[in-house]
Amino acid sequence: VYLGIDVGGTGIKVGVVDAEGSILAQGETPTLAGRPYAEIIRDMGICALDVIAQGGFNVDDIAAIGVGVPGVANQETGTVVFCTNLGWHDVPLRAELQKYISKPVFIDNDATVAGYAESICGVSVGCHSSVFLTLGTGVGGGIVIGGRPWSGFHGIGSEIGHIPMDIDGEPCTCGNNGCLERYCSATAIIRMGKEAALLHPDSMLHAACGGDVNALTAKMVLDCAREGDDVAVKIFRRYVKYMCLAIDTIIAFLDPEMIILGGGVSKAGNFLLDAIRAALPRYLLFKTLPYARIEIARLGAEAGMIGAAMLGRQLIKEA
Amino acid sequence: VYLGIDVGGTGIKVGVVDAEGSILAQGETPTLAGRPYAEIIRDMGICALDVIAQGGFNVDDIAAIGVGVPGVANQETGTVVFCTNLGWHDVPLRAELQKYISKPVFIDNDATVAGYAESICGVSVGCHSSVFLTLGTGVGGGIVIGGRPWSGFHGIGSEIGHIPMDIDGEPCTCGNNGCLERYCSATAIIRMGKEAALLHPDSMLHAACGGDVNALTAKMVLDCAREGDDVAVKIFRRYVKYMCLAIDTIIAFLDPEMIILGGGVSKAGNFLLDAIRAALPRYLLFKTLPYARIEIARLGAEAGMIGAAMLGRQLIKEA
Repeated sequence: VYLGIDVGGTGIKVGVVDAEGSILAQGETPTLAGRPYAEIIRDMGICALDVIAQGGFNVDDIAAIGVGVPGVANQETGTVVFCTNLGWHDVPLRAELQKYISKPVFIDNDATVAGYAESICGVSVGCHSSVFLTLGTGVGGGIVIGGRPWSGFHGIGSEIGHIPMDIDGEPCTCGNNGCLERYCSATAIIRMGKEAALLHPDSMLHAACGGDVNALTAKMVLDCAREGDDVAVKIFRRYVKYMCLAIDTIIAFLDPEMIILGGGVSKAGNFLLDAIRAALPRYLLFKTLPYARIEIARLGAEAGMIGAAMLGRQLIKEA
Repeated sequence: VYLGIDVGGTGIKVGVVDAEGSILAQGETPTLAGRPYAEIIRDMGICALDVIAQGGFNVDDIAAIGVGVPGVANQETGTVVFCTNLGWHDVPLRAELQKYISKPVFIDNDATVAGYAESICGVSVGCHSSVFLTLGTGVGGGIVIGGRPWSGFHGIGSEIGHIPMDIDGEPCTCGNNGCLERYCSATAIIRMGKEAALLHPDSMLHAACGGDVNALTAKMVLDCAREGDDVAVKIFRRYVKYMCLAIDTIIAFLDPEMIILGGGVSKAGNFLLDAIRAALPRYLLFKTLPYARIEIARLGAEAGMIGAAMLGRQLIKEA
């Protein structure tokens, strides 16, 4: 069996996962970001040992450990090069974690392993190639090519949220302008929603947040659009257009077998999916040729943990 | 040995190529586009037989035939699905060509095979992954992953010229707006050059085309920029910015080992390359981490022919 660890800004999820991606035991520990990394990784190790024992396993049953981090990892050294959420820079995660569990440790980006999980036991099972998008505070990307996770030659790829989508466009937290996540994230829906709610105090949208636009969520905007509120529908259409441009970028560049929408915004389900599927063809270069199936992710919040374990499985096989 | 055929809008290049990508014999026949496809493919077949004989080979020496076309091919049926330049739609190229040479025929996009050629015997030899850009009338793309050409699951990928780069931007010949090739092609340089020359009749640029802005070429704009003409330098800087955004897209998405600039604009050589390399880091998400080497293509006009032959070699090996 394999150990999968999903490191988030608020919680660390740990699971014992079998070769098919089924979770056999799981647990969670708070991240309490801001602490020295050694403390965070110690809690991670203790939680892992606990989950292993809970599941009736012992450490020798674990063939490999995979860790998904919201950042960039160096596969060779086993360090987390950058992880903005946690304030990590060049953190020796492998070495630290092996103090508690002396097993091979493999680390990759959280969206990359989540997309990989979908290809093992989620919506993209059996797909030769897929691109997974997490539509949340930002936009994360996970690429699978030939059944293997792909995060680039230098490990800095699949950062789809930071593809430039508009020359001199909206300023991004990364310092650049016009990054894709400025248009396709939940944050983008909230930004457009706030602007519109302020301009239209009579709208359903304005009422939905009780008149406090700072309390507005992406879900409120999407729900109001579903209810037919003109103001919200307009935002929804703009969002669908931006998503079509993002998907068109993926198709024109990589042309994968499937494109998967995950993260908070994807909870809008078929309401979002149907609108994107209907609008997409007009943006494509080849409107009459077959192109990627667009689907909603299936694994939800456990995708990262499962995918991390499957990363460990894949890389220990290749090692 | 392998036969490589590069189908262009004006000429068809044919070569006998060895397993290392060296040309052993070559010839060319005019395309005379607009004729029925059967006539064009007949001339292609006759030229190929001629080149084979010229080189002292006979048809049995040819292990496979590769064809690069400025369009989209269906690898299974051996048809050219779309080829705008030639007005081709669902043309059974494999079947027609086999009337003259009964050997396995493999077809792919011309930029894809040109990029593949660079990875066999050009600037990207030994690279695990690379993205090749032809900067000409449009912008073509060639992706190599794991040493194999990649044109997508449905064969419609690596169309980098049609990645949307600017929301509601410049109208493109494809019917969409803001496609990358509207900013990064020779055509884009000419468009910017014309506008500027008209606005600045005293500029070196205006003089370079003898005051006839319709005679302006991308080379004139680049040469004037190199000479320090203010008007041309401004265009050059804008072009470099657009190229940086294009390269940033490739890095943020795929993060290949190398990015290669080919096509007419790349003849500006180090003048262009140095400017791009200097400006690029400020656009990257991870400014301090290693990223793709940016290089100028090495094989020139023969890349397509060599790459087509090498495609044949690769696919007959896998068949």
